[in-house]
Amino acid sequence: MAATLGIIEYADASPEVRAVFDDIMTTRKTDTVNNFWKALARDPATLRRTWESIKQIMAPGALDPLTKELIYLAVSATNQCQYCLASHSASARNKGMTEEMFGELMAVVGMANETNALAAGYQVEIDEQFKAGR
Amino acid sequence: MAATLGIIEYADASPEVRAVFDDIMTTRKTDTVNNFWKALARDPATLRRTWESIKQIMAPGALDPLTKELIYLAVSATNQCQYCLASHSASARNKGMTEEMFGELMAVVGMANETNALAAGYQVEIDEQFKAGR
Amino acid sequence: MAATLGIIEYADASPEVRAVFDDIMTTRKTDTVNNFWKALARDPATLRRTWESIKQIMAPGALDPLTKELIYLAVSATNQCQYCLASHSASARNKGMTEEMFGELMAVVGMANETNALAAGYQVEIDEQFKAGR
Amino acid sequence: MAATLGIIEYADASPEVRAVFDDIMTTRKTDTVNNFWKALARDPATLRRTWESIKQIMAPGALDPLTKELIYLAVSATNQCQYCLASHSASARNKGMTEEMFGELMAVVGMANETNALAAGYQVEIDEQFKAGR
Amino acid sequence: MAATLGIIEYADASPEVRAVFDDIMTTRKTDTVNNFWKALARDPATLRRTWESIKQIMAPGALDPLTKELIYLAVSATNQCQYCLASHSASARNKGMTEEMFGELMAVVGMANETNALAAGYQVEIDEQFKAGR
Amino acid sequence: MAATLGIIEYADASPEVRAVFDDIMTTRKTDTVNNFWKALARDPATLRRTWESIKQIMAPGALDPLTKELIYLAVSATNQCQYCLASHSASARNKGMTEEMFGELMAVVGMANETNALAAGYQVEIDEQFKAGR
Repeated sequence: MAATLGIIEYADASPEVRAVFDDIMTTRKTDTVNNFWKALARDPATLRRTWESIKQIMAPGALDPLTKELIYLAVSATNQCQYCLASHSASARNKGMTEEMFGELMAVVGMANETNALAAGYQVEIDEQFKAGR
Repeated sequence: MAATLGIIEYADASPEVRAVFDDIMTTRKTDTVNNFWKALARDPATLRRTWESIKQIMAPGALDPLTKELIYLAVSATNQCQYCLASHSASARNKGMTEEMFGELMAVVGMANETNALAAGYQVEIDEQFKAGR
Repeated sequence: MAATLGIIEYADASPEVRAVFDDIMTTRKTDTVNNFWKALARDPATLRRTWESIKQIMAPGALDPLTKELIYLAVSATNQCQYCLASHSASARNKGMTEEMFGELMAVVGMANETNALAAGYQVEIDEQFKAGR
Repeated sequence: MAATLGIIEYADASPEVRAVFDDIMTTRKTDTVNNFWKALARDPATLRRTWESIKQIMAPGALDPLTKELIYLAVSATNQCQYCLASHSASARNKGMTEEMFGELMAVVGMANETNALAAGYQVEIDEQFKAGR
Repeated sequence: MAATLGIIEYADASPEVRAVFDDIMTTRKTDTVNNFWKALARDPATLRRTWESIKQIMAPGALDPLTKELIYLAVSATNQCQYCLASHSASARNKGMTEEMFGELMAVVGMANETNALAAGYQVEIDEQFKAGR
Repeated sequence: MAATLGIIEYADASPEVRAVFDDIMTTRKTDTVNNFWKALARDPATLRRTWESIKQIMAPGALDPLTKELIYLAVSATNQCQYCLASHSASARNKGMTEEMFGELMAVVGMANETNALAAGYQVEIDEQFKAGR
């Protein structure tokens, strides 16, 4: 049955799930919940834990929320996560990512993936001075 | 022979390679070249192209150099590239990354890797509103 | 031509391929063959070797078949393999995976991907006691 | 300074960090804390959140703790996380993983990584019946 | 607006972008440009740098262009990059990849992904003789 | 005990394992067996299956053995598999890989990893003409 295997809509959700959905919408100042959360709602414990962690981690701190979204996109492009790229590209734009920023983000992500493979392929040993500064 | 298979030191380098090494040291205001570049020196065309690309990409732009280093680290942690993490952790600190920034960076990187796997495992379909905004 | 480049249906298959298809259907007690096998049928040697390996590996042993399906899903979610997630989610449910099991599986997979990235990013050195017990 | 950049020993830890270390040792019935946690101690918020999540996720549930360790190892081998493989191989053995189980685990992990790549490379389309059962 | 966020068609492109598009079509003896390049056109600097690099790297050298395409496909299958597999499968066939070659390529790619995971999972130490020959 | 958990030397091996070791040494015209096989010897079924598969896959066919080694290295660099890079770099050199070939291999591998990330990050849609030719 779709209601148990696929995603869970607000109307079909338990009070526990609705409470998380409500907090997502309040925190994000929106009246919809993404499919990601509707899917996690199949496991309320994971839904709650994941949401609480993201809410804490993505909040302003030593890094601003936009920088955090850029980092999120960098990981998601590296992992080829199509859903995450679609949803977090939107989030990043909402938080002020311009086309110029996106272009530079992708340039760095591409270059890092390239040099990661080169460092491995050439079996480069870690320089002594980098070992000290760990 | 180590000189051909391993890394190439400045003293053993061709003029073409020395020119790149010189530009690296000048640009980075240092008198040493990392093992990564000494390894790439085995293929001067790749050495030059990679250095020219990195010099261009990591320069200040719509994103500042520190943010670019954070993105680099995010990719390298996702790919488990030990050499890149060692060398770019040092670069990031040189450009002003504090312990607080590093901690938040890693928190986002960890969370992004977690939710990337969750989005895949739950086979979450992309929301209609995200398709429009590509 | 689709028949050579895409997937190979039973009706178009050589006797060698049909023999593998027959064994798949007999072993799995079904009358259909998944697209994965129809695609591998383009290379009969790989089709046969892959099927024989999977038949051997996924059989009951020190680990039961459901546990093996959970491990399969863990790898596939980590690799973002959409086809494998779709087909092996179905296999796992057929072998008894409940929603609760799926939720816990995904929680562990998400957490492992998170901590894999953290261990790399923090450049954590292996504890002495773990080196001994390899 | 090593104390701020590397790992944090119990003797140098803040009360907040010590409280997590104490809970780790109590929960795991051991008198040592792994380097992973000593590294995360550099960011007490991440230390606490990660530990609380792992404690919750790895506890007995619909899946037993050993199965969860096997899943953890499957992800870690796929990601080439050397630290995680070293530490969780020990955990899995402590929870009862035999050599036979380890061998079968690795056989499934290897096969899943192989077929993940084959499904991608052959560009296999998802079968209709798998789309329904999401 | 699609013209800024999605892909950029030749008719809408700046002279700088058109120059790259023209070079792509001339070099590849075709009158179309793939979506990949139309997407990169959103960032003309990345478009130009990426195209110049690929043109240099994929040209005949110590390795012939077909071998290079096979290597490209090997990486793309490992990374689960669906777009790259679709476009470079076509390129490889255009350069002479037969079904037999494709089958053997995929067999090696699958096996390499399998043994990569096994080497990690078994925590195999590098043999002394391999350390010397780096 | 190291003999059961680590690697198994010829002197300690069962007849079943020795038979595989003998075949490896005969096929490869050498008198040593790499640590990889000594580790797999902990699970004789996986040892035999993996060796038989590799022997079949890496043999000359539509692709020559050197090309297959290059493909192996491409996957291993992408996955950051340090053991596999060490052992297969040696194999590739034994089969005739020159420094020029290695340099071009790595250039393609680096570029493919870069463009894989770019294609994902830009969310590039597959061109219609590539869908037809699957």
